Amino acid sequence: MTNRRTVFFVSDQTGVTAETLGRSLLTQFESNEFDLVTVPFIDTVDKADAVVRRINATAAEQGTRPLVFSTLVQDELRARFIPVAGLFLDFFEAFLSPLERELQTRSSHTIGRAHGMKDSGAYDRRIDATNFALRNDDGSRTADYETADVILIGVSRTGKTPTCLYLALAYGVFAANYPLSEDDLESGNLPRLLEPFRAKLYGLTISPDRLQQIRRERRSVGRYASAEQVRFELRGAEGLFRRYQIPFVDTSSFSIEEIASTILSGTGIERRSRP
Amino acid sequence: MTNRRTVFFVSDQTGVTAETLGRSLLTQFESNEFDLVTVPFIDTVDKADAVVRRINATAAEQGTRPLVFSTLVQDELRARFIPVAGLFLDFFEAFLSPLERELQTRSSHTIGRAHGMKDSGAYDRRIDATNFALRNDDGSRTADYETADVILIGVSRTGKTPTCLYLALAYGVFAANYPLSEDDLESGNLPRLLEPFRAKLYGLTISPDRLQQIRRERRSVGRYASAEQVRFELRGAEGLFRRYQIPFVDTSSFSIEEIASTILSGTGIERRSRP
Repeated sequence: MTNRRTVFFVSDQTGVTAETLGRSLLTQFESNEFDLVTVPFIDTVDKADAVVRRINATAAEQGTRPLVFSTLVQDELRARFIPVAGLFLDFFEAFLSPLERELQTRSSHTIGRAHGMKDSGAYDRRIDATNFALRNDDGSRTADYETADVILIGVSRTGKTPTCLYLALAYGVFAANYPLSEDDLESGNLPRLLEPFRAKLYGLTISPDRLQQIRRERRSVGRYASAEQVRFELRGAEGLFRRYQIPFVDTSSFSIEEIASTILSGTGIERRSRP
Repeated sequence: MTNRRTVFFVSDQTGVTAETLGRSLLTQFESNEFDLVTVPFIDTVDKADAVVRRINATAAEQGTRPLVFSTLVQDELRARFIPVAGLFLDFFEAFLSPLERELQTRSSHTIGRAHGMKDSGAYDRRIDATNFALRNDDGSRTADYETADVILIGVSRTGKTPTCLYLALAYGVFAANYPLSEDDLESGNLPRLLEPFRAKLYGLTISPDRLQQIRRERRSVGRYASAEQVRFELRGAEGLFRRYQIPFVDTSSFSIEEIASTILSGTGIERRSRP
C-alpha cells in the first residue's frame, strides 16, 4: 500500500478556496505524501464530466483513490461527481444547509464569486494599496505617511517589503515601510521624520542567525552579513522599539501571513477586503 | 428580525483559512449583511474561553446568534465552544473523520501550520519571487527573463504589476512584466528583446471603458485616459497577441486571484507554494 495520493482541488472559480481548505486539512496528515492538482473554472456539465474522467483515470493508473476537494456550488455540477472513483469532499454541501437553517434563507447556489469582482471598489482599493506599498517601500518618500494605515520599521531583510505587499493585496491595507539606517541605530533615537507618526509604527525584528542566513544568500561576503553587524543592528532596532514603546514582532519563524495577521490583530486595523 | 449578523473567524493560527472558507460561504447569502471579526492565534484554553465570552456578549447585545467559523484543530480548544451562543461551524470536524478513514491514519490534531513556516525554503522562494517581481516590473531590465516563469505583457494599467506580485506571494512563481509602448503598438511587431522569450509571454487586456475609468482615477486629464488613446492601445495590443499567438486574458471583470489562476491553468506553471 502506498502513502501517496493525488489530490484534486475542483472549483467553478479560481480554486483558491478549495486549495486553502484542502491544504489546511492535509497538514494534519504529515506521514502521507500528496500530489496536488488544481482544476479551476469548472462551470459546465461537460467540464465537470471531463474532470470526473480524469480522476477516474488517475485512480485506475495509480491503484489508489484520489482525494477530491470541491467548492462547486451548483447542484447540477456536483451531481456529476457522485460516481467518481475518489473521496469527494464537498465544502458547500457540508456547510450551506446549517447556514440556510440559521439564516432562514435559501442560499443562491449560484457560482461563487468568493474571489471574484463583486465590486470594482474592492479591486481598486487593493490596487491602490499595492501602488501605495510600492511607492513607500524604502523610506525615501514620507509625504504619503499621513494616509498610511501602518508604517513598518526594521533593519534590512526583516520582511518589511513582502509584508507590506501582502497587507495591500490581501487586505487593502495601506502599509509603508521605513528601513532603519545605521545612523538611526547608533543614535538610539527615532528618526525625526517618523515622530509625527509614532502611533502608526510597527517594528519587525528577527533572530541574528536567521538574518545572517537571509543576508548571506543575497550577498555572499562582507560586513552586511557578518555576525557582529547583524547583532549590532538587531540590538539597536529592538532597543529603539522598547524605548519608544513601538509594538514589534519577531519574524524568524513566521510566514508572511502570520506576520500580517499579528500586525492586524495588534493594531486593530480593519481588513478592508479579503481575496 | 434583523438580517444583520456578526461573524467570527476563530483560528489557532492566522485566521486566513477560516476567513477564506467563511467568506466563500457568505457570498451565497447576498441578502444578508455581515459584520466580520477575525480572532487569530487562539491557542490556549484561556484564550478560547475569552472568545466564547465575547461571542456570548455579542449575542446578548444584538439579540441574534453570531456565526462562528472555526479552524481550531485541538479537541481541547474546540470543546470550549460547545456551549457558545452562536452557530458553530467547524471546518476540521467536518472533514477530518472522512479523511482519516480514507487514509487509514489518525490525523495529528496538532495546531495547524497551514500558513506557517513549514520550511524556510518555501518562505525564501516566495520572498525571492517577490523580489524578482519588483526588479522586473517595468521592462527596463530584461537580464532576468531567462529565469522568469512567465512574462506578462500589456498596455499600462491592465493589472500587470499586482498580478506579478500576487503570483510571487501566493505561489512563489517568478513573474516579470513588460509594458507595451506606443512604438510597439504602432509597429505591430513584438519588441525584439521579447523574441527569445516568446514561449513565456502572456498577455493582459481589458475593456476600453474599464481602462479609461482606471486611468481617469489616476490622472484626471490628458490623452492618456482619452477614449481614442485607450482604444488605439488595446486594439494594438490584442492585435499583437493574436498575430504572435500569445495567450491572453481579459481582466475587465476579474479579480487578481482570477487573473492569476487563469494564467497558471493556461500555462501549466507549477504552484510552488500556497499561503
